[in-house]
Amino acid sequence: MVIYERTPHYYETDQMKIVHHSNYIRWFEEARVAYLDAVGIRFADQEAAGIVCPVLTVDAKYIRMVRFGDTVEITTRVNLYNGLRWGFSYEVRDKATGELCCTGTSTHCFLDTAGKIIRPKREYLTMHELLTECLAKDAE
Amino acid sequence: MVIYERTPHYYETDQMKIVHHSNYIRWFEEARVAYLDAVGIRFADQEAAGIVCPVLTVDAKYIRMVRFGDTVEITTRVNLYNGLRWGFSYEVRDKATGELCCTGTSTHCFLDTAGKIIRPKREYLTMHELLTECLAKDAE
Amino acid sequence: MVIYERTPHYYETDQMKIVHHSNYIRWFEEARVAYLDAVGIRFADQEAAGIVCPVLTVDAKYIRMVRFGDTVEITTRVNLYNGLRWGFSYEVRDKATGELCCTGTSTHCFLDTAGKIIRPKREYLTMHELLTECLAKDAE
Amino acid sequence: MVIYERTPHYYETDQMKIVHHSNYIRWFEEARVAYLDAVGIRFADQEAAGIVCPVLTVDAKYIRMVRFGDTVEITTRVNLYNGLRWGFSYEVRDKATGELCCTGTSTHCFLDTAGKIIRPKREYLTMHELLTECLAKDAE
Repeated sequence: MVIYERTPHYYETDQMKIVHHSNYIRWFEEARVAYLDAVGIRFADQEAAGIVCPVLTVDAKYIRMVRFGDTVEITTRVNLYNGLRWGFSYEVRDKATGELCCTGTSTHCFLDTAGKIIRPKREYLTMHELLTECLAKDAE
Repeated sequence: MVIYERTPHYYETDQMKIVHHSNYIRWFEEARVAYLDAVGIRFADQEAAGIVCPVLTVDAKYIRMVRFGDTVEITTRVNLYNGLRWGFSYEVRDKATGELCCTGTSTHCFLDTAGKIIRPKREYLTMHELLTECLAKDAE
Repeated sequence: MVIYERTPHYYETDQMKIVHHSNYIRWFEEARVAYLDAVGIRFADQEAAGIVCPVLTVDAKYIRMVRFGDTVEITTRVNLYNGLRWGFSYEVRDKATGELCCTGTSTHCFLDTAGKIIRPKREYLTMHELLTECLAKDAE
Repeated sequence: MVIYERTPHYYETDQMKIVHHSNYIRWFEEARVAYLDAVGIRFADQEAAGIVCPVLTVDAKYIRMVRFGDTVEITTRVNLYNGLRWGFSYEVRDKATGELCCTGTSTHCFLDTAGKIIRPKREYLTMHELLTECLAKDAE
């Protein structure tokens, strides 16, 4: 579990005077980059090494509007790893009140630069062990 | 069912050389604005009249990468209307090949400017009838 | 001179209830892709051939706010080509009223995939001739 | 002078594998919000009080590409205040090397909610004094 703090930017608001819903999908990405960073995987290094992580699915449930001037905390957990696919859950909370604003999940796989699926257990053992450990810890 | 054609913009790509996954959520919005427009509801007029449509949920499943230079067609259908909430399904296909690239859904409600939920059957009858009709037609 | 029509998207608005100023910079990009397309250069093909066009400078002057529900026309002209750098000017007008909303310019160069500057006259003659011709025509 | 640190997000890259040029315009906005915050003006409060600050002009000069994995520092200075219009200059530098990546400016005015121009000296004295002071300090 890693908590990522974020202050909405003005350009992320829309004319409803709230953060546009599409931006939460981007925040989820920021939160998982922060998660990986916290557990020792630099996303940029991984791509430089020829491993990309496309998004397979994403979903979000919007519970409470977030506005410019608010600060949110995004709690990210690994909630899936089956040897092939891996996933995260996200909880966006208002930092001041603790109120839940949005929840979501995303799932991913690993590809090499040729677009071939990488099986972490065989070809990316560090990641296999890390995901196994994160999944166990985050389920506690 | 309304088909909305879209050419990805350069700024919508990411360093994986594909359209970034968050943009499909934005395309879904464009597609439902086009849908409503096609059935006679101008989204801008609706907001001017004090009715907003926040997004309650959104999800997307990414099947095939879309690249700059491709053209996609987004088929949008009303797939939910229960008197309170309404929703759409989306299919993003490569225009040239017909291949399915992404599917998704979104759900929405109506709010007045004070943030109170509007029940279309009582307070927004035109929309109630329209959604009932669209739901029936799109299910065929 | 090429005219590119554009309808602002909902997600391009901000809480001032206008199109956020950063989006015009993106519209300029769309407009120049449309310009090149109109004169026979497919941007996507060019990149596939190993030629990229980074932006060197950009500027915009915001004259009249554009809102969701408006339609704009962006008039794009080649206003610079000195054998090395090339540039465009943009005029964004409200389609309904013809009022000028925004003007801007951008300048660019050509790089190969190694990041080396390409001199069109020597290494990309088709483009050299095209830009020379466009510059002359658009100055009329 | 206020320094704002920023780590580029993955979704801010494009298929040239660099941060898309339009995002610097958004970073400038983030940087001036941070500047105002540092000198005691909360942008969100100001809007809540009915004062908006539209962008009148913006420009950027791109000198060195910024990539995902880099960290930049944006140095922001008030470089204009003539009683009506005010402006900022921005310098984006690579944090690790100090290399200059991008420079830019923006100019702004103040409007009330009716869209009428506010003259700080008469109607918004706190801001008038602040801008006068910031302009003097940042010119040193």
